[in-house]
Amino acid sequence: MHHVDVHMEAEIYGANNRLAEHNAEHFKAHNVRAFDLLGAIGSGKTSLIEKLVPELRSRGKVTAAIAGDVYGDDDFQRIIKTGIIAFNANTGKECHLDAHLVHHALDHMDLDDVDIVFIENVGNMVCPTDFKLGAEKRIVVISTTEGDDVVNKHPMMFRDCQIAIINKVDLAEAVGCNVERMIQDIKRYNPEMLIIKTNLKKGEGVKEIADVILA
Amino acid sequence: MHHVDVHMEAEIYGANNRLAEHNAEHFKAHNVRAFDLLGAIGSGKTSLIEKLVPELRSRGKVTAAIAGDVYGDDDFQRIIKTGIIAFNANTGKECHLDAHLVHHALDHMDLDDVDIVFIENVGNMVCPTDFKLGAEKRIVVISTTEGDDVVNKHPMMFRDCQIAIINKVDLAEAVGCNVERMIQDIKRYNPEMLIIKTNLKKGEGVKEIADVILA
Ligand SMILES: Nc1nc2c(ncn2[C@@H]2O[C@H](COP(=O)(O)OP(=O)(O)OP(=O)(O)O)[C@@H](O)[C@H]2O)c(=O)[nH]1
Ligand SMILES: Nc1nc2c(ncn2[C@@H]2O[C@H](COP(=O)(O)OP(=O)(O)OP(=O)(O)O)[C@@H](O)[C@H]2O)c(=O)[nH]1
Ligand SMILES: [Mg+2]
Ligand SMILES: [Mg+2]
Ligand SMILES: [Zn+2]
Ligand SMILES: [Zn+2]
Repeated sequence: MHHVDVHMEAEIYGANNRLAEHNAEHFKAHNVRAFDLLGAIGSGKTSLIEKLVPELRSRGKVTAAIAGDVYGDDDFQRIIKTGIIAFNANTGKECHLDAHLVHHALDHMDLDDVDIVFIENVGNMVCPTDFKLGAEKRIVVISTTEGDDVVNKHPMMFRDCQIAIINKVDLAEAVGCNVERMIQDIKRYNPEMLIIKTNLKKGEGVKEIADVILA
Repeated sequence: MHHVDVHMEAEIYGANNRLAEHNAEHFKAHNVRAFDLLGAIGSGKTSLIEKLVPELRSRGKVTAAIAGDVYGDDDFQRIIKTGIIAFNANTGKECHLDAHLVHHALDHMDLDDVDIVFIENVGNMVCPTDFKLGAEKRIVVISTTEGDDVVNKHPMMFRDCQIAIINKVDLAEAVGCNVERMIQDIKRYNPEMLIIKTNLKKGEGVKEIADVILA
């Protein structure tokens, strides 16, 4: 979060949280379960959607997604190729989604036949934690190529999410990443956190994530 | 940048820019050349410092560094192992360094015998661009593992920096990254940009970067 005056900060968060609750009610009214996808740039958030959609479809579930990015529609284009409905939410200059942008997306999405909505945030390990969006759970996706200090550097992210995905396990050796250190750091910040290791290029670990999401 | 009122935004940037100019004068007074290192989480900013320090030392140059991170001293510990002086600047909750944090760091660093200062920012492709720090040039480090859409998604970063380093070229194939697309996107946003491809794990491309920095 940037330097802003304390009162202003409280106002921004207050307004955002009210709208996040409204979004949560919106999901509930449509019998939809919503999940945030947070994480660093390129950690594998869109890959996760690409792999989860067919897995959930095979279990009879219809998915939709909101693609959050500063600029462009790269993720949106990849997501709609999976055959689901999606909305492209560009933040322009902001480094995170907020409840207002998600609310706007919901205005454009017909959720009547949808079971699950994924909200992919902007790649950023800091600011998105401050802005609730209305999802029932927050999933943080990190990857080995970010270095094994990525958890230690971002305590708030791991305290704020319920599920952690450690992606790109196939590249751990190539970057010299000690996955065990990451796991220990996660447990230190959030002992309750569910941790799943994945190779989302190959789809390894996706069934386990689907199990957790549908639990 | 987060939603703040327009006047407040102008005030924040105005105050920051004045302090950035003061930092620039501080560097000048000590005959020091300063370079910002920006980029996504884990792109290779600290690796670049680790590899550049001995290369610059072999050319008779003394380096120092400011290690910017939200939390912890992982980067600081790696940097001082190269034998240079450094300062650990934790931002706490902020997603970027600002000129004030850098000014504070300079208060703690004896620059008398130093030729070059690297200012490693928090891993973030959005917010650091809004905050000048007083360096003469900004270097953005991206890596193939972030995906080849990372440039397209972050226009401001590439308009704001003068040198782009495309790191982890050894992993391009493993993630399916088209490096040529990255280069084309960079040229579209900033035709003047200097682009250097590296494998900073092995030190490939480091001599070229040293040439550019000392030019
Ligand atoms: N080798 C390997 N590559 C992966 C894996 N997961 C994702 N990738 C690749 O990593 C790059 C980034 O993946 P994305 O899914 O676009 O990551 P993201 O988190 O959506 O990225 P942003 O939305 O830009 O922040 C792409 O080139 C993927 O193909 C993995 O487990 N192993
Ligand atoms: N294979 C390979 N690994 C690399 C390369 N460059 C860096 N790495 C590894 O990538 C991980 C992250 O590198 P860092 O230098 O810590 O990246 P950073 O930009 O300083 O990261 P933050 O400060 O956390 O944002 C580390 O495990 C490095 O060893 C490269 O060119 N090839
Ligand atoms: Mg994505
Ligand atoms: Mg670093
Ligand atoms: Zn921010
Ligand atoms: Zn001063």
